[in-house]
Amino acid sequence: MPDVDDLGFARVDTGRLKRRGLSEVVFCPGKTPDQVLAIFRSLRDAGQNAFATRAAPELYAALRAELPELVYHAAARAMTLDTVPLPAPSGLVAVVCAGTSDLPVAEEAALAAERLGAHVERVTDVGLAGLHRLMPFVDRLRAARAVVVVAGMEGALPSVVAGLIDRPVIAVPTSIGYGTSMNGVAALLAMLNTCVPGITVVNIDNGFGAGVAAAMINRTGKD
Amino acid sequence: MPDVDDLGFARVDTGRLKRRGLSEVVFCPGKTPDQVLAIFRSLRDAGQNAFATRAAPELYAALRAELPELVYHAAARAMTLDTVPLPAPSGLVAVVCAGTSDLPVAEEAALAAERLGAHVERVTDVGLAGLHRLMPFVDRLRAARAVVVVAGMEGALPSVVAGLIDRPVIAVPTSIGYGTSMNGVAALLAMLNTCVPGITVVNIDNGFGAGVAAAMINRTGKD
Amino acid sequence: MPDVDDLGFARVDTGRLKRRGLSEVVFCPGKTPDQVLAIFRSLRDAGQNAFATRAAPELYAALRAELPELVYHAAARAMTLDTVPLPAPSGLVAVVCAGTSDLPVAEEAALAAERLGAHVERVTDVGLAGLHRLMPFVDRLRAARAVVVVAGMEGALPSVVAGLIDRPVIAVPTSIGYGTSMNGVAALLAMLNTCVPGITVVNIDNGFGAGVAAAMINRTGKD
Amino acid sequence: MPDVDDLGFARVDTGRLKRRGLSEVVFCPGKTPDQVLAIFRSLRDAGQNAFATRAAPELYAALRAELPELVYHAAARAMTLDTVPLPAPSGLVAVVCAGTSDLPVAEEAALAAERLGAHVERVTDVGLAGLHRLMPFVDRLRAARAVVVVAGMEGALPSVVAGLIDRPVIAVPTSIGYGTSMNGVAALLAMLNTCVPGITVVNIDNGFGAGVAAAMINRTGKD
Amino acid sequence: MPDVDDLGFARVDTGRLKRRGLSEVVFCPGKTPDQVLAIFRSLRDAGQNAFATRAAPELYAALRAELPELVYHAAARAMTLDTVPLPAPSGLVAVVCAGTSDLPVAEEAALAAERLGAHVERVTDVGLAGLHRLMPFVDRLRAARAVVVVAGMEGALPSVVAGLIDRPVIAVPTSIGYGTSMNGVAALLAMLNTCVPGITVVNIDNGFGAGVAAAMINRTGKD
Amino acid sequence: MPDVDDLGFARVDTGRLKRRGLSEVVFCPGKTPDQVLAIFRSLRDAGQNAFATRAAPELYAALRAELPELVYHAAARAMTLDTVPLPAPSGLVAVVCAGTSDLPVAEEAALAAERLGAHVERVTDVGLAGLHRLMPFVDRLRAARAVVVVAGMEGALPSVVAGLIDRPVIAVPTSIGYGTSMNGVAALLAMLNTCVPGITVVNIDNGFGAGVAAAMINRTGKD
Amino acid sequence: MPDVDDLGFARVDTGRLKRRGLSEVVFCPGKTPDQVLAIFRSLRDAGQNAFATRAAPELYAALRAELPELVYHAAARAMTLDTVPLPAPSGLVAVVCAGTSDLPVAEEAALAAERLGAHVERVTDVGLAGLHRLMPFVDRLRAARAVVVVAGMEGALPSVVAGLIDRPVIAVPTSIGYGTSMNGVAALLAMLNTCVPGITVVNIDNGFGAGVAAAMINRTGKD
Amino acid sequence: MPDVDDLGFARVDTGRLKRRGLSEVVFCPGKTPDQVLAIFRSLRDAGQNAFATRAAPELYAALRAELPELVYHAAARAMTLDTVPLPAPSGLVAVVCAGTSDLPVAEEAALAAERLGAHVERVTDVGLAGLHRLMPFVDRLRAARAVVVVAGMEGALPSVVAGLIDRPVIAVPTSIGYGTSMNGVAALLAMLNTCVPGITVVNIDNGFGAGVAAAMINRTGKD
Repeated sequence: MPDVDDLGFARVDTGRLKRRGLSEVVFCPGKTPDQVLAIFRSLRDAGQNAFATRAAPELYAALRAELPELVYHAAARAMTLDTVPLPAPSGLVAVVCAGTSDLPVAEEAALAAERLGAHVERVTDVGLAGLHRLMPFVDRLRAARAVVVVAGMEGALPSVVAGLIDRPVIAVPTSIGYGTSMNGVAALLAMLNTCVPGITVVNIDNGFGAGVAAAMINRTGKD
Repeated sequence: MPDVDDLGFARVDTGRLKRRGLSEVVFCPGKTPDQVLAIFRSLRDAGQNAFATRAAPELYAALRAELPELVYHAAARAMTLDTVPLPAPSGLVAVVCAGTSDLPVAEEAALAAERLGAHVERVTDVGLAGLHRLMPFVDRLRAARAVVVVAGMEGALPSVVAGLIDRPVIAVPTSIGYGTSMNGVAALLAMLNTCVPGITVVNIDNGFGAGVAAAMINRTGKD
Repeated sequence: MPDVDDLGFARVDTGRLKRRGLSEVVFCPGKTPDQVLAIFRSLRDAGQNAFATRAAPELYAALRAELPELVYHAAARAMTLDTVPLPAPSGLVAVVCAGTSDLPVAEEAALAAERLGAHVERVTDVGLAGLHRLMPFVDRLRAARAVVVVAGMEGALPSVVAGLIDRPVIAVPTSIGYGTSMNGVAALLAMLNTCVPGITVVNIDNGFGAGVAAAMINRTGKD
Repeated sequence: MPDVDDLGFARVDTGRLKRRGLSEVVFCPGKTPDQVLAIFRSLRDAGQNAFATRAAPELYAALRAELPELVYHAAARAMTLDTVPLPAPSGLVAVVCAGTSDLPVAEEAALAAERLGAHVERVTDVGLAGLHRLMPFVDRLRAARAVVVVAGMEGALPSVVAGLIDRPVIAVPTSIGYGTSMNGVAALLAMLNTCVPGITVVNIDNGFGAGVAAAMINRTGKD
Repeated sequence: MPDVDDLGFARVDTGRLKRRGLSEVVFCPGKTPDQVLAIFRSLRDAGQNAFATRAAPELYAALRAELPELVYHAAARAMTLDTVPLPAPSGLVAVVCAGTSDLPVAEEAALAAERLGAHVERVTDVGLAGLHRLMPFVDRLRAARAVVVVAGMEGALPSVVAGLIDRPVIAVPTSIGYGTSMNGVAALLAMLNTCVPGITVVNIDNGFGAGVAAAMINRTGKD
Repeated sequence: MPDVDDLGFARVDTGRLKRRGLSEVVFCPGKTPDQVLAIFRSLRDAGQNAFATRAAPELYAALRAELPELVYHAAARAMTLDTVPLPAPSGLVAVVCAGTSDLPVAEEAALAAERLGAHVERVTDVGLAGLHRLMPFVDRLRAARAVVVVAGMEGALPSVVAGLIDRPVIAVPTSIGYGTSMNGVAALLAMLNTCVPGITVVNIDNGFGAGVAAAMINRTGKD
Repeated sequence: MPDVDDLGFARVDTGRLKRRGLSEVVFCPGKTPDQVLAIFRSLRDAGQNAFATRAAPELYAALRAELPELVYHAAARAMTLDTVPLPAPSGLVAVVCAGTSDLPVAEEAALAAERLGAHVERVTDVGLAGLHRLMPFVDRLRAARAVVVVAGMEGALPSVVAGLIDRPVIAVPTSIGYGTSMNGVAALLAMLNTCVPGITVVNIDNGFGAGVAAAMINRTGKD
Repeated sequence: MPDVDDLGFARVDTGRLKRRGLSEVVFCPGKTPDQVLAIFRSLRDAGQNAFATRAAPELYAALRAELPELVYHAAARAMTLDTVPLPAPSGLVAVVCAGTSDLPVAEEAALAAERLGAHVERVTDVGLAGLHRLMPFVDRLRAARAVVVVAGMEGALPSVVAGLIDRPVIAVPTSIGYGTSMNGVAALLAMLNTCVPGITVVNIDNGFGAGVAAAMINRTGKD
């Protein structure tokens, strides 16, 4: 079968890079270190860069002897193995974050967008309790091709940001909160029910997906 | 039994005014016109003013011949029958409303607060999609003893308002929205999960309860 | 207050067009014909085009005498009033639809994107039960700057489409289905939990929001 | 930017005290000891008192060497660092608690209200299974400017208390219970659906928010 | 097949009276008048009394010509056809009701218990907003063999009643309420999470089931 | 495009019969009479029999003039148009039904299975309240190649049936019930959580899907 | 205050035994060993027997040195301290259990009923997958004054048992199961939606409450 | 009692093999090693093969000394003890798996089907992100008597597979995912709401039940 590397427990989709502009990505939970190792090697042998999300430090520790060129991105809980150069950055993506506890999700989004060719500007801790912290950054956000906004708890920051700019906003709910936050469901619902048209949403804590979407929009900007 | 008027189908709690500073209120759904009529007469005979919430125009039409002094408040979907003078207004309560569709709930809150002795200032249609509409009213909100904020959809306006002032904010979610709004549950969750401490919340569409709470706070201001 | 037209029951945000590249839009449910009329006139007087979503035929019938230039878009359940010319179309947005019952939502998305300056290509009834119907359109989808995919029931079509192309995909769940569809929640969950990174999602039946997001991405393509 | 201290991972909102009468508060879960330390120092350097909620004993142990003046409030799971004198107490807030297991949430509310200038009276273990335990305290509750009522399980105590007094009641559901308690959702729903108007509600286990709201009401009493 | 009358669309379980002390009961929604008629005739022919719940007045109107001895119980929305004398009443069941709107459910319970041989005492409109209305009835409740307590909204009355007596309490949540009442789910959850041991619960609005359970307990009292 | 008939609003998948042994089926809700008419004609012109589910009598009345050979199956709420002879029946499928109100769903399953080539045996009204009614049919159920069991309310009949036989059981929850039945969710959950291995489940009220699955199993029996 | 022992963190309701025929019971989760110890001593000093539910073995180990007469009931996860003789047993309660994993909940019910004066008969592992195991016990169940039925997973055993007897059935859902069992919610819903009238239900895993209710019914049998 | 082995804590249903073609199976969670040991011995003494699901490696380690012939199937988390020869395999069941993390559930299904007499073909890692990986296996799937499809996240693979073949498809949702996956509920809902008739579904992670259902269908193929 072309464009597939059959490892038995997995069929690595080596055609994905050409088809989607994005290689297969490893979601680590539920996979053994040996499985992650084999998939990374398969991608490397196919001449593609590899990316793993939700990689625990213990997983990195278990693999770095086997893959010395492996890099661990602690703030994003991600692991990468690069075989070919990353694309030269072009165009701007902004990643805005409501609170300090949302940082790992925001950083996952930023890393994903950077590796797919975007310049990334990070704006941190500008939540609703003190909106004056956001205002100095509005002009910079208006210069971006796409804006990712990450928030937990009541999840209202994307609506505020989108109300001020004319750019596509991708909202990422996080599981930060307690009680009726229901691990991020409250934030997700707020984002889906925004009164500001043009906001789109991804799964709870899915910084990676938001970063990919922003990068795809950013690439569209080159057409 | 003192402080009770036994109508058979209902035991009107005539002691409530003295105990709570607020007479028994009639929630109309599920009650027949005859039942509402009897309760209003019972309160009138006890020398108390009467208030009914969620009163359909048809109910008012059915009762006004029997109770000529009955007043219908269409914007608030409420009905009142006054036997003694209302308290002279003192102190300020503000009622802020995110969108035009939220007006009936906001008006129910305003009417309740006014009848319990507050001056009420209404601020309408200042939702998140255009926050500059809210800013001119901030000083006025800071002058109120309590601020009621009514919003549907993502329900984030109470957080924004509370972040700007030092007054107690009572948030009222409305059932305005569609899809994952789930008839106001999304707005309710956003309000409960606010990152701004000091906000308290009532049931979906419960403008009456919010108005009562604001009026009780306003009365505390006289102590 | 600049950029605001205070109608009493509403504060029309006339600055939104400049700030967001998109005038204020009227969500009709819960508004009286008089309210919709006044908001449309306010936008017209500000020299802006007007758009109303979820407009029942009865609402259009009630308003067309007052606003002869009003246009009703039955397939999209929308109403428009144009004062200035629409932008010349540029760039391609595709709107893909899983089944016949999903058409009104898809048409709302297409109309919104067209009015905001995109060429729109519609691809109808290509759901999972017969995926060979989708394949002839893949090249055309790869030519779009953004692809909107509308689906009810199990909501899996966006994943299939996104797996075949390198463009941003905006998924719109619809309320088509029964039983555990829960009025579109099943489709929404499928879209949020996609295994294909880069898909973003809007609220159930929110064709308008998806069309706006696609048009914003399309405009980014001009930078 | 005035009124902001940019720490990189956080933008401490030093203007909040003036704007809201309440400094920024640290919600500890998801923050590293170093992050909490830096925020406390930032507030101290701004001449403000600091408060952290949900602070584990281990966190306090990690920080007390760095911040010798740090105080740990074990019963409330809170941590404080005072730089300026607390306000002199004035006015009464009551904190009523249904059962022994609800005590940590009640104590968090009491501590917050005390630090914001209220005298606090605590009434413990007066749940519905033996309501005669509540009765001796009714006169004292009627003397308070605001009453916080904390309850888990069926969450009905706020309705009983509010039915007996004419003061604003803030209800706090706790996560105490099992099975269909759903970690406090049952208690929350009971409180939102009270038949006693004037009760407002905060998030599950949010003693802090209830204490702040009560203190804001108490301050209103001084106007 | 013994103990069964096969009507084609139904197999009437004529053995149920002997096995359970209770004939088969007709739940009317979803059944045609002809189907209800045939089942009532089948029970009559078997020499058993018949009972139908949730019978609309229109259904009764359609059947009374065919079954002249049919009786309609409007307050309980029930329909009965008696072929043999009812059992002589013995022992006491109390049915307590929180509010006027809960009366149809309470009356269904009372009717069921009466027909199964209990004396029934009704206590109406003694909800939490004025608990002093309940107190005069406590001695009478202590004399009952079982107490049914019917309540909507926050559903807390069963806990208060059970805390005062030593008799089995059967709680019936009703769908009275709005917003987060979720058609009675809030009341149900409160009843299931009671802090007063010994309360048992039936489905929302299931007055009939509660009446049957109370009557079965009452019959046990004769052993 | 082969195997597709493009009607503009729909792409009829005429290849489905060959691929799946089952022509495309029309789910009527949300489709106009003209749309259903066009799809039926497309299938007829392709030489295939047509089947529509959830067809209201009004829809049939609107179409029978245009399609004189159209047949309405009132008990199953279905509509069929046959162009070629149905397959000769072979093998047995049993359809078991808990109560009279569940009959429409059961009949939809029976009709679907019959049209796909099975003999169907119907067993009606054998619910848990009188299990002795089921016992005489056990031998007949053991003779079937597949058994469909339809039940609402607590949804337990499939477990009882499956515990007695060695045949595949397909469980169909119905929306019959009230309160916490949640329109069939309670029955669905019971069926998914059965302690009897070998039961599989379809969506609430999905008699058609169950009938198709049973017929596919029945055809397997011919191999 | 009479009938109350104020321990500071708790107000032990020593009047409960007289009022309810049942002393205050300790729910151990969330209480410290010192708190449990103090409450047990308070009850002992009041001349009452004490009972604690959900008592971990570690808690017993911590307390037995202080309270040598303390008894640990491992199968029921309960702890008792008897100061006066238990009532002489009279009347029969049956406790039926669907599967081996449900035993701890069933044993908690049995222990509670025994201590409140009932003879208890235990019937174990008679779930729906093999109903013939239940049949030999039907006569014995018919001799009981109340029957407790404990089941997890699909929770259908109470319906089957109640369909065979004329005694009050108290159903206890357990959290045994996985996936859509949702920790016992599926079983609870099945029990609430039973088609067999007369079944009442308690909270998930609440064996204690079921045992108390059964014992109260059993005591009624003595009247 | 015939066909039952009473162990006190369990009544082993030794008649199940004859009645259902499948011996009693042990679900390990919540059972002690001694209980599992006793049930395995009971089945062995009855001359039947034994199967335990969700068996932790520690449980196997605890039992293998007592039962030397015990076999542990690590990939399926299962444990077996064979006393008589397994049936000779006949007929084909396919088990298709969307991703690597779904393998344990798929393997449990495969093992169950094999032990009940089917040849099993495994197809792994053919999820929607790269559907070309599935296509080479379509002919093989068409040769199976039943096809089990295992998927987590958006759970759409069963719809795609069923759309291509004419065989019964049993869908198994897994708990793989995060956020709104809600431990497999999203996948379950997608499978229940499939637009492809003929798919049936089992509980989340219930590979065993799917394997049994597939084997029962496969045996039907022999009739």
